[in-house]
Formats: sequence, structure tokens, C-alpha cells
Amino acid sequence: MALAHKGITPEYVACRFGDKGRMAFAGYERYPLLVDGDRSIGDSWAIACYLEDAYPDRPSLFGGATGRAAARFINTWADRELQPALLPMIVKDIYDHLDPADQPYFRQSREQRFGMTLEAMAAKRDERKPALARVLDLLRAQLDGQPYLSGTAPAYVDYIAFGAFQLARSISPYRLVEPGDALYDWRKRLLDLHGGLGRSTNAYPE
Amino acid sequence: MALAHKGITPEYVACRFGDKGRMAFAGYERYPLLVDGDRSIGDSWAIACYLEDAYPDRPSLFGGATGRAAARFINTWADRELQPALLPMIVKDIYDHLDPADQPYFRQSREQRFGMTLEAMAAKRDERKPALARVLDLLRAQLDGQPYLSGTAPAYVDYIAFGAFQLARSISPYRLVEPGDALYDWRKRLLDLHGGLGRSTNAYPE
Repeated sequence: MALAHKGITPEYVACRFGDKGRMAFAGYERYPLLVDGDRSIGDSWAIACYLEDAYPDRPSLFGGATGRAAARFINTWADRELQPALLPMIVKDIYDHLDPADQPYFRQSREQRFGMTLEAMAAKRDERKPALARVLDLLRAQLDGQPYLSGTAPAYVDYIAFGAFQLARSISPYRLVEPGDALYDWRKRLLDLHGGLGRSTNAYPE
Repeated sequence: MALAHKGITPEYVACRFGDKGRMAFAGYERYPLLVDGDRSIGDSWAIACYLEDAYPDRPSLFGGATGRAAARFINTWADRELQPALLPMIVKDIYDHLDPADQPYFRQSREQRFGMTLEAMAAKRDERKPALARVLDLLRAQLDGQPYLSGTAPAYVDYIAFGAFQLARSISPYRLVEPGDALYDWRKRLLDLHGGLGRSTNAYPE
């Protein structure tokens, strides 16, 4: 979404967990990884900053230095609060959709990280709902009186949150938002952006 | 701090809980209330937006529309996460510093809101520390590599968080931050800003 915001159409290279070695040339082992000419940039936030600085004449992702700093805080919030609240809801579904060769690694690493089996996490989905509702309510409040998290037009803060929604939508039948929810309408706006880019991946019904 | 950022020196009028009626002329009953000529504006966020729009030629609080939207999200986060994590730590101290005439109202309204006595809240201070540490860690992460929450220069997002720290510092001996903490150094920078404005109130030792 950030690339499309900048008017850039990249070549996408899909990568399985077992293919991490393909990113070793750049010194990274986690996606996303952006390769632009002879530059390689890993980590979503670093990529967004790179795009903003390398393509300053294209539409801005942050709206200036002060906006970039505020977006950075929201990015950290999403990493520490939004994503961890969402992940237990969908982690078993991620596992179920993986290439079988990746499943043992994923199970072992995630079960170690969370201290319980994937099945136990899935069983706790309902009791995790209040924690998820609390972070989603923060996003909902932001949509009071404006169509995008970034105000009247979409910008990087929208893409931060949209990424979490896209992951859920593409890998899990769990319905994060329902029609009638301001976040449902917001997600629809994001899915319509940039020529419907967000609809170009396989996904469960909205 | 937002007024000083805009180069405005207001006349301050202190107001006790029992004096709420003094704000009735403006249709508000909670401070802060800003009166600028024939305009009256209540609520910190609305005041910040008013200042930004009414004084566009002074230094910006938000750095543009996208930055304003992101700051609004952080303001909501502060209202819902930072302030509630901090308040249990200091609520009994607030009570102890109140004009005796205000104490019964404060006790009754806060004990009803939190469902326990002020003394019970004070006794839970230690068990609430992890929740406070979690929100303070979000602010600390933001100071990695930059002196202010808003980047290289202070802006409204700094003042949002500083307000919470100022309340604690002025009303409670509870030490929210200690020397050596990035947030301690950041608070010192904020206290030094605008001619040391933040040091002009009574406060406990830093």
C-alpha cells in the first residue's frame, strides 16, 4: 500500500518460512524486504521511511517530520498492542494455511513464543476478545468524523492498521469486523484504494 | 504548553472542583477552558485544534493535516491508556492536596467511578505498576534516537504526554521516572522549554 501510495509498482516475490535464506544477501531473514536498485531495506517502518525520503516528490506517507514522528509512535503501538491482540485469533489459521514443509517450524517457534499449543491459543479466542475490542475501539474513535485514520485522505497510519486487517482477511475465516462497524466501512475504503490493490490477494469473504 | 508553543501568554484562572459554576457561561463544567476574545473552547484537544487554526502563522502544533490526525490518535490513546494507568498511582495524593471543601465530592465521584475506596486504590499501586510500565515503554521506544516524542523538535504530542507527567509531579511524591531513564531526560527537556514554564508550578522534587 505504501508503494502504491508512492505510485510504484514493484515486482513481488513470495517467500516461505523455509526460504528465509533467499533474503540473506541483504542481511535480513524476515520479510518484508524491499530491494530498490542496489539498496535493500528490511522492516516495514524502515521501508516506509526509505520510500518517503527516496521519493519526496510523490504523495507523502507522513505529511512532514512531525507527522512522521507521530506515525512512528502509532507503528510501535500497532506492533506492541494491535498485532499481539489480533494474532491469537488467527495463529492457528495461519498454521493451517501454511505449506506443510513450513508447519513444524511455525508450530515450534510460535508455541515457544506464546508458551502454549496453537490449539490452546485457538481455544482461548473468546476470552481474548475484550483485549482485541479495546485496541479496535481506539481505531474506531479515530474514525469519528473522518473517513480515514489519517483524516480526509489515506496515509501511512491507515496502511499500518490495514496491514493487520489484511493479514487476518487473507488467512483466517475469523471475522474481525462486521457490516455496520465504522472499521468495516474504513476497511472497504482501503480495499478500494489504489485500483483495488487490497482485493488482489486470496481472501475470505468480507 | 500549547499556548506557549504558539507564543501566547494567557491570563490563568485557577478553579476548584466546587467552582465549576464559573465555567457555566461557556457551557462547560470541566477544565481546561480557553477564553479567547468572545470564543470559549473546552477540552484540551479542541483547544489545541483551535489554537492551530486561529494562529496558523505561529509555530505549528501538528505539522499539517496528516500530523494532526496522527496526534489525535495519540491523544485518544493517552486518554484511554496513559491517564488510566497513571491515575491509580496518584489519585489518593490528589485527594490529600485538595481544598478540604472539595474533598467529599472528589472522594465520592472517584470511588464511584473506580468501584473502590481511594485508600484501596493507593494500596494497589504496586500491582498496577506493570500496566503503567507497559504504556511508559511505548513512550520510551519513541525516544530511541530522537530527543522529543515529536522528533527533533517538540510539538503537541510531547505536550499530551507531558501533561500527564506534570499532573503527577505537581500533586504526588510518587516518582514516575528516575534519573537514567530516557523519559526522565525527556521530561527535563520539556521542563526547560518555553522559558522553564513547566517549572513555574509547585511540584515535588524531580
